[in-house]
Amino acid sequence: MAQQHLDPTDPRSRHVGPSPTPGSAGTGGAPVGDALADYLRAQATEFLRALRLHRETGTTAGGPNGAAGPEDPVDAARALRRAVRRISGSLHTFRPLLDPDWSESMRPELAWLSGTLAMEHAYAARLERLLLALHRLSGAVFPAQPAVGAAVGSRSAGAEPGAAGPAAHPVTPDRGNLTVGAAKAGALLERQLTLARTRSHSTALQALGSSRFHAVADHIAVLASEVPLTPAATTTDLRPLASAAEGRLTDAVTALPLVTAGHPYNAEALIHGLSPDPAPHPQDAPWHQVRLLLRLHRYAHEVLQGADAPVNVRLLTAGQALDRHRDASEAAAAAAQAARTPRIAPATAYALGVLHADQRHEVEAARFAFQQSWQKQTVGTP
Amino acid sequence: MAQQHLDPTDPRSRHVGPSPTPGSAGTGGAPVGDALADYLRAQATEFLRALRLHRETGTTAGGPNGAAGPEDPVDAARALRRAVRRISGSLHTFRPLLDPDWSESMRPELAWLSGTLAMEHAYAARLERLLLALHRLSGAVFPAQPAVGAAVGSRSAGAEPGAAGPAAHPVTPDRGNLTVGAAKAGALLERQLTLARTRSHSTALQALGSSRFHAVADHIAVLASEVPLTPAATTTDLRPLASAAEGRLTDAVTALPLVTAGHPYNAEALIHGLSPDPAPHPQDAPWHQVRLLLRLHRYAHEVLQGADAPVNVRLLTAGQALDRHRDASEAAAAAAQAARTPRIAPATAYALGVLHADQRHEVEAARFAFQQSWQKQTVGTP
Repeated sequence: MAQQHLDPTDPRSRHVGPSPTPGSAGTGGAPVGDALADYLRAQATEFLRALRLHRETGTTAGGPNGAAGPEDPVDAARALRRAVRRISGSLHTFRPLLDPDWSESMRPELAWLSGTLAMEHAYAARLERLLLALHRLSGAVFPAQPAVGAAVGSRSAGAEPGAAGPAAHPVTPDRGNLTVGAAKAGALLERQLTLARTRSHSTALQALGSSRFHAVADHIAVLASEVPLTPAATTTDLRPLASAAEGRLTDAVTALPLVTAGHPYNAEALIHGLSPDPAPHPQDAPWHQVRLLLRLHRYAHEVLQGADAPVNVRLLTAGQALDRHRDASEAAAAAAQAARTPRIAPATAYALGVLHADQRHEVEAARFAFQQSWQKQTVGTP
Repeated sequence: MAQQHLDPTDPRSRHVGPSPTPGSAGTGGAPVGDALADYLRAQATEFLRALRLHRETGTTAGGPNGAAGPEDPVDAARALRRAVRRISGSLHTFRPLLDPDWSESMRPELAWLSGTLAMEHAYAARLERLLLALHRLSGAVFPAQPAVGAAVGSRSAGAEPGAAGPAAHPVTPDRGNLTVGAAKAGALLERQLTLARTRSHSTALQALGSSRFHAVADHIAVLASEVPLTPAATTTDLRPLASAAEGRLTDAVTALPLVTAGHPYNAEALIHGLSPDPAPHPQDAPWHQVRLLLRLHRYAHEVLQGADAPVNVRLLTAGQALDRHRDASEAAAAAAQAARTPRIAPATAYALGVLHADQRHEVEAARFAFQQSWQKQTVGTP
């Protein structure tokens, strides 16, 4: 939220009354619609800043393999995704406070934009994760410095930058330490995921040049100065809507198999590792859903607390565990998918099998980490 | 130790003095050589009983696929191995109290016998473990009742009969729920491990009919009535020798990476899962060594405490974790070995890769379980 000082309209100047809570008015200091407006304006401003940065850096740095500077298109794209997710999430949680025609027309456009912008990075991160795992599984030694080039940084703002363990090491382009099977598996994954990434890059570029995108960007530009609140919003307490978002989260968490997840090495995540069903593990879906609900809860928390709110470390940790869960789940599926490539060598297939199981193991580890952080969580006092 | 009532000479009749501690004499109630003699006599008697049982049941029940009754050759073979291990271990720990010529000539013979008798069961248990894992990984449903036939019971007396988790379920001969890859992997493992098992069965039968075995059995028959103690043994305190065995154990445990092992999902066990080195994981060796030292410590504890000693549950639990560690380590190696079979299908190799990683995951889980039980352990008060 450090970007908020770039906001042309200082949100703090809009506070009503002497209360330190941003946007509070007439309801005993409770946050009302103005706090939501402040938040949306700040996110819209951040979106416009990131878009400008993306246009400035994107043209010189080029495609997915371009050189990455301190203000590179990867950072800009991440900032774009961050802002779009927050606007989209706030529209969802605080829907009754916003002009219904406007928010109903915006929501599918934001979802489209968010999805389109996420794909390229997701493929890059998936490849990095899988190559790192192959190196770890081969007992290869990692350098202390992050590699540039294929490495595109952490997947999202909350993607465990300080996580311990071998997976946190960067991948090296060298495959000299790998066995034939691991090297071939790495080459196959690199081919398949780089292709998918390049396609996503083109799709994202096309999207950013489309009239559909320009329409969304225009709407967000308007949002940076004028938030279409309903007439009643300025005196409506935001907390019941935020509580409802939290309630949806806690309900979904309650339905998770947390007792099993809290028992280390329960071997649940791999239970369908050789199932005939090629679809993604159905057991992962409730966890993915909690990940989305946790994010909505976190954004609602940001709206209520304003720009100066301290980060809720426990919510962040739980969210990081679920990000890791999602990433490992998708990486495991990619390894299984690669193993279905026709005419691969048995050694390649063997390495992909080990890799798949390793990533399912990561899925299980992430569930354990979530369970641990959730137990510590004082739910209800975000 | 319930078999001790079968001992022709009641060991309790040999106690010196009114002390309740068996075999104590003249050293303030401390256990002396007589306690060792009692223990060795009891184990030798148990060996002879198991051998008689093995001969009676083995001829009618036949080979490794014979019908298994309540007093089957599997039980008899297990009882034989149990007794041989205990005699062998006691000779090692309490060597200074025994006639050196006799014990030095006995020890390699007992090691040979113990190793020869263990192989068949080890291959059978390994196959069972791997087929169970394949079923679990395929999401197959298990019957509630143990299967007969290939199943040969738990690997050792301490092989976690009540362990939780899917791996505790018995295997079914049906492979209908498996994918092609899992079914082919299962068939390949079954072929390879059944062949190894059959060979071990023949080797064991040959060994039991050999003059070398008859010489060992004669020595053990003598041991059942007359233990060759040194003249000083009847007044020598056993506890320093038992403490030395415990010291060797605690030194070896101290050298284990227990901090890592106590951190769930540390991903250490699979770190060389795709290493070019086809040898068994060198990281497993210190754990295997601790397993042997723990066993020697447990047997020394049995000698000191006598027949009525309560089982030390924590030592038993720690030992079970290390048994599981060894079994999973060997099963993982067997899966990796099978994957090197020429001309296997990629789907088979993939399934073997998943299976290998699953068993290495089990190795890691066993280390965690050992660390947990060891932390609870009050070392020094066995």
